[in-house]
Amino acid sequence: MQAKVSIIMGSTSDLPIMESAAKHLNELQIPFELNALSAHRTPKQVEDFATKAYERGIRVIIAGAGGAAHLPGVIAAFTSIPVIGVPIKASISIDGWDSILSILQMPPGIPVATVGLNAAKNAAILSTQMLSIGDEEIKEKVDNFKKSLEEKIVKANEQLSQIKFEYKV
Amino acid sequence: MQAKVSIIMGSTSDLPIMESAAKHLNELQIPFELNALSAHRTPKQVEDFATKAYERGIRVIIAGAGGAAHLPGVIAAFTSIPVIGVPIKASISIDGWDSILSILQMPPGIPVATVGLNAAKNAAILSTQMLSIGDEEIKEKVDNFKKSLEEKIVKANEQLSQIKFEYKV
Amino acid sequence: MQAKVSIIMGSTSDLPIMESAAKHLNELQIPFELNALSAHRTPKQVEDFATKAYERGIRVIIAGAGGAAHLPGVIAAFTSIPVIGVPIKASISIDGWDSILSILQMPPGIPVATVGLNAAKNAAILSTQMLSIGDEEIKEKVDNFKKSLEEKIVKANEQLSQIKFEYKV
Amino acid sequence: MQAKVSIIMGSTSDLPIMESAAKHLNELQIPFELNALSAHRTPKQVEDFATKAYERGIRVIIAGAGGAAHLPGVIAAFTSIPVIGVPIKASISIDGWDSILSILQMPPGIPVATVGLNAAKNAAILSTQMLSIGDEEIKEKVDNFKKSLEEKIVKANEQLSQIKFEYKV
Amino acid sequence: MQAKVSIIMGSTSDLPIMESAAKHLNELQIPFELNALSAHRTPKQVEDFATKAYERGIRVIIAGAGGAAHLPGVIAAFTSIPVIGVPIKASISIDGWDSILSILQMPPGIPVATVGLNAAKNAAILSTQMLSIGDEEIKEKVDNFKKSLEEKIVKANEQLSQIKFEYKV
Amino acid sequence: MQAKVSIIMGSTSDLPIMESAAKHLNELQIPFELNALSAHRTPKQVEDFATKAYERGIRVIIAGAGGAAHLPGVIAAFTSIPVIGVPIKASISIDGWDSILSILQMPPGIPVATVGLNAAKNAAILSTQMLSIGDEEIKEKVDNFKKSLEEKIVKANEQLSQIKFEYKV
Amino acid sequence: MQAKVSIIMGSTSDLPIMESAAKHLNELQIPFELNALSAHRTPKQVEDFATKAYERGIRVIIAGAGGAAHLPGVIAAFTSIPVIGVPIKASISIDGWDSILSILQMPPGIPVATVGLNAAKNAAILSTQMLSIGDEEIKEKVDNFKKSLEEKIVKANEQLSQIKFEYKV
Amino acid sequence: MQAKVSIIMGSTSDLPIMESAAKHLNELQIPFELNALSAHRTPKQVEDFATKAYERGIRVIIAGAGGAAHLPGVIAAFTSIPVIGVPIKASISIDGWDSILSILQMPPGIPVATVGLNAAKNAAILSTQMLSIGDEEIKEKVDNFKKSLEEKIVKANEQLSQIKFEYKV
Repeated sequence: MQAKVSIIMGSTSDLPIMESAAKHLNELQIPFELNALSAHRTPKQVEDFATKAYERGIRVIIAGAGGAAHLPGVIAAFTSIPVIGVPIKASISIDGWDSILSILQMPPGIPVATVGLNAAKNAAILSTQMLSIGDEEIKEKVDNFKKSLEEKIVKANEQLSQIKFEYKV
Repeated sequence: MQAKVSIIMGSTSDLPIMESAAKHLNELQIPFELNALSAHRTPKQVEDFATKAYERGIRVIIAGAGGAAHLPGVIAAFTSIPVIGVPIKASISIDGWDSILSILQMPPGIPVATVGLNAAKNAAILSTQMLSIGDEEIKEKVDNFKKSLEEKIVKANEQLSQIKFEYKV
Repeated sequence: MQAKVSIIMGSTSDLPIMESAAKHLNELQIPFELNALSAHRTPKQVEDFATKAYERGIRVIIAGAGGAAHLPGVIAAFTSIPVIGVPIKASISIDGWDSILSILQMPPGIPVATVGLNAAKNAAILSTQMLSIGDEEIKEKVDNFKKSLEEKIVKANEQLSQIKFEYKV
Repeated sequence: MQAKVSIIMGSTSDLPIMESAAKHLNELQIPFELNALSAHRTPKQVEDFATKAYERGIRVIIAGAGGAAHLPGVIAAFTSIPVIGVPIKASISIDGWDSILSILQMPPGIPVATVGLNAAKNAAILSTQMLSIGDEEIKEKVDNFKKSLEEKIVKANEQLSQIKFEYKV
Repeated sequence: MQAKVSIIMGSTSDLPIMESAAKHLNELQIPFELNALSAHRTPKQVEDFATKAYERGIRVIIAGAGGAAHLPGVIAAFTSIPVIGVPIKASISIDGWDSILSILQMPPGIPVATVGLNAAKNAAILSTQMLSIGDEEIKEKVDNFKKSLEEKIVKANEQLSQIKFEYKV
Repeated sequence: MQAKVSIIMGSTSDLPIMESAAKHLNELQIPFELNALSAHRTPKQVEDFATKAYERGIRVIIAGAGGAAHLPGVIAAFTSIPVIGVPIKASISIDGWDSILSILQMPPGIPVATVGLNAAKNAAILSTQMLSIGDEEIKEKVDNFKKSLEEKIVKANEQLSQIKFEYKV
Repeated sequence: MQAKVSIIMGSTSDLPIMESAAKHLNELQIPFELNALSAHRTPKQVEDFATKAYERGIRVIIAGAGGAAHLPGVIAAFTSIPVIGVPIKASISIDGWDSILSILQMPPGIPVATVGLNAAKNAAILSTQMLSIGDEEIKEKVDNFKKSLEEKIVKANEQLSQIKFEYKV
Repeated sequence: MQAKVSIIMGSTSDLPIMESAAKHLNELQIPFELNALSAHRTPKQVEDFATKAYERGIRVIIAGAGGAAHLPGVIAAFTSIPVIGVPIKASISIDGWDSILSILQMPPGIPVATVGLNAAKNAAILSTQMLSIGDEEIKEKVDNFKKSLEEKIVKANEQLSQIKFEYKV
């Protein structure tokens, strides 16, 4: 089984956030891999990873980082595989603003598909939407997942219906 | 009894905030309803709700949401009933700024009456002020409530008068 | 003819923004008045205005202000008529943040229905939505206005259809 | 020729920003379409567009919007086609912060691939990277474009080499 | 003994912050008073307080408030006694930004002497500096307090000198 | 004639802002002086100025600065004369936020009375309010100035009364 | 042994942050000293320290401060030794923004080498990089430390390899 | 003559800002070089430059960049030469916040010495302060430059002395 999605994090302290991406891919039965790579501490490994990812079968890269979060952008510099960036509210981060801005505001030519703060699960969903472009089987999984989202709201309404107020109709 | 105010939330995780709106309406004996609807997970139900609310007797809608808080604006797109938006500092929210800006900054033509962060009670008070425009009975309730606000400050001063400092006059 | 909506501004330098509220009410043929009142320079007139507005027939107040924008909140302190606040990006304002926050973040008990930065027209639209709660004639005007909004987009698409690219389908 | 990418904007005032996306797709010879749709003024057309886009052959949607920028998120609510959001610093926008946050901070389940402020060209590049996942021909175009990016810097260095200072080596 | 400084707060929930102002005035033996007044809940009492404060002997007013913090500015509207504003990071406040901006950014003609977030003690110190302009006795107290500030740093250095590192000189 | 107020600026590029302080003091006939002193370029002169200001008759200091605006705080470190800080939106400043925060957020013990961004005139008004504590003649000038503020609003209302709309009452 | 680096803090409450600078210098066996000096409470000692530091053998100064953090800039005003500023998220600080901006935004002529929020260890590393310019022995220590940084990532990857998912490759 | 300082920019559009660094080094007769390198468009050249800079005689690197400004941090990843980062308010930048945060907030182990927004001249001054650690000749130049800074203020005071007001002393 060949990994199609590569989940990269700058530090294992980001694992509690990034593992929700892994869980979603696992649930949808999309083969993936997990790696720790630092744009600043292991810059050569980042280059090595990014330049060889396509030939290894990787089609989407999910990269999470916090603070001056260069990892997604630096990977995007070395490959034309789409890179999804997950800004992480790390302990060094200023409420997440640094993480968001240093991933989102990439210069012309090198986009990073940025998702919300700590939104690793959304990154995984987005990766499956990308993969579904050329893969009917994944497309079906993605559509089924989308249908399942309504249920949460249906349950929420049941919960609300049990709340009692005199003037609640 | 027909509900005049509809309180909508995007998720039951918003209930601890939004229930203070329900409590205030209950206290003032204004018939209301509570619903969970998601602009993103149940978009068709949102449309259905918004287009039929007026004929069901709803005259004001209070919608609370957090993060990229589209719910109040999307409801306002489908109805000309006034919509009061409550920005919620949800767990995914960046200190509430995302919730505030995505409710407040609506485009020309589709206003949302925005109240402060987590200010669901103020949303309820505002809804009764709106209802009182054409309803003398509600107007009286609103005026009585307003008069009661002074008491909190009167009590506060009693508390302050009991604090002892040598040079306090 | 008795004014139903009162448009208040803290300074005539706010007129270029606030007149779009007047224009919309004029277009919908809703009787209104225009006043300059300053929460800080004429505090007693503000009190006088606010406490007598209801008996003069005013049912909605639109108040615009910039910087430490206290005017909408101070008016709301003296009346239970709904107050719509328009934060203005005045010359003294810090990109509008001060105007927004000092109108939006009202304490419990005294809501101000806040619209977007400089969004005086939206304030007028919202005032007509409020008035329509107890007035079928205004309700019809509001609904007609809402229907007219689509046209702008229809025209926009005509404009887009005239743009030529070789690979545009 | 069937459009694969759909470029949507909330208003033609966004065209000066969004046309750089069209230009890039044209340059790379990727069939695309241009539409104006408003999440708030034409909500039913948005639903209609989004639910039928896949069967019309659309594989990536690029949606630009400013202020309380709901368009990308509302489209994403109705389809599992990947949606790329372009936050636009519109005239009503507060330095772009509202546009960014109301696109980026989508709730769990409904991601929008957000690019930088006004970065419509980067959105187009990202759309081609996504399309290249299942399309060798597009993959080659994307790789060639990436190689061309270096040249700008090479020219920049030539320009710098002509600047004369006595102590410049 | 006649109070010279009046400490005002919008709510007793602000007392834990504002009492450090009272403590400092007590320590320096400056007669003061403590009051709760709300710009929004008791607007007439605020006017009454402010217009009569000078004749009662008050020479400086310290007013603390959070959120849309109008209290200092509204008091300043009614009197020419200098008003010191203390922005409070209240529970409804957005990290204190709303409190700061709605006190600091007063319009031309009505200044409020703003101190740092929650800085009630600094407000008290500033009030004594103002009183010392025409009062030699208070001037001496203020100067003595200023001299005492150095001691904290001297003690801090003693503490640092006891920390042992091999390479600490 | 002995100066009572000293207006200090960090650079003559701040003069266009700070001269409105000078103009107001001139208008109220309060003797003042103007100086350029830099906390960073002439730190010893700042110390010299601050330590000798009281014996020269200075009773209030107004200090304006932009960017990392240390001047007001550094002066306040050397004297117990009240220091009013004017944050200036200088060319190096980030929309004025740096200027505001580095003046406002002084540590315990050393307050600076901060006014709004670029609000040099308000600083001058505040300085006269402080001087009026022990000076009946200045008190009268301050009260007269305060009374004159209403006129601006009276004129504004005349201007508004001339605007014609069919539905303006 | 003569100290080459001087670590200064404005208050011992900053010690828990600043001691990580001391620990790093200790580990690399660079002689250093620790001092508490306040730009506002002990301004003359700051001048005395800064003007004499060079002749005492100090070659780099690390200064940490929070709130209106003037200490690094004030030291830089008195010496041409490079000053590294550490913005500290102190209890009085507004999420660290005040600390960052009042250190970073120094006026032309007086730079402070600013590091990230609370990044005292990075300040120590930077100080050793500066010292290594003219010192081969320190250069070797710095290079060795840099090589050691990769190991953390290597260990992180080992940890990730032990996480089990069915679809993890 | 061998360059000691290398000035790097991500794009020649940054030249109007970065040339003030070159001018200052030229004025102080410090040999330097100017290069354009992009962390994202020419990542391999950045690596090549950074790993060989020391052996070519470079002792300080000044790197300017805007938006998601990764250049200074990526260079710092490959070398232990001190790197001074200049955040640039580029056209794509959000008022400079993105540039500042993505340079300043580097992770532990890889500091960048950040200067103020657009403060390229301060970066050059800081570079000479660093070089002066092991070089008496440069130390003298740096000290002379520092002495010259006072003159600007002396001239400013002459200008202020010529301003005439009746009550200016």
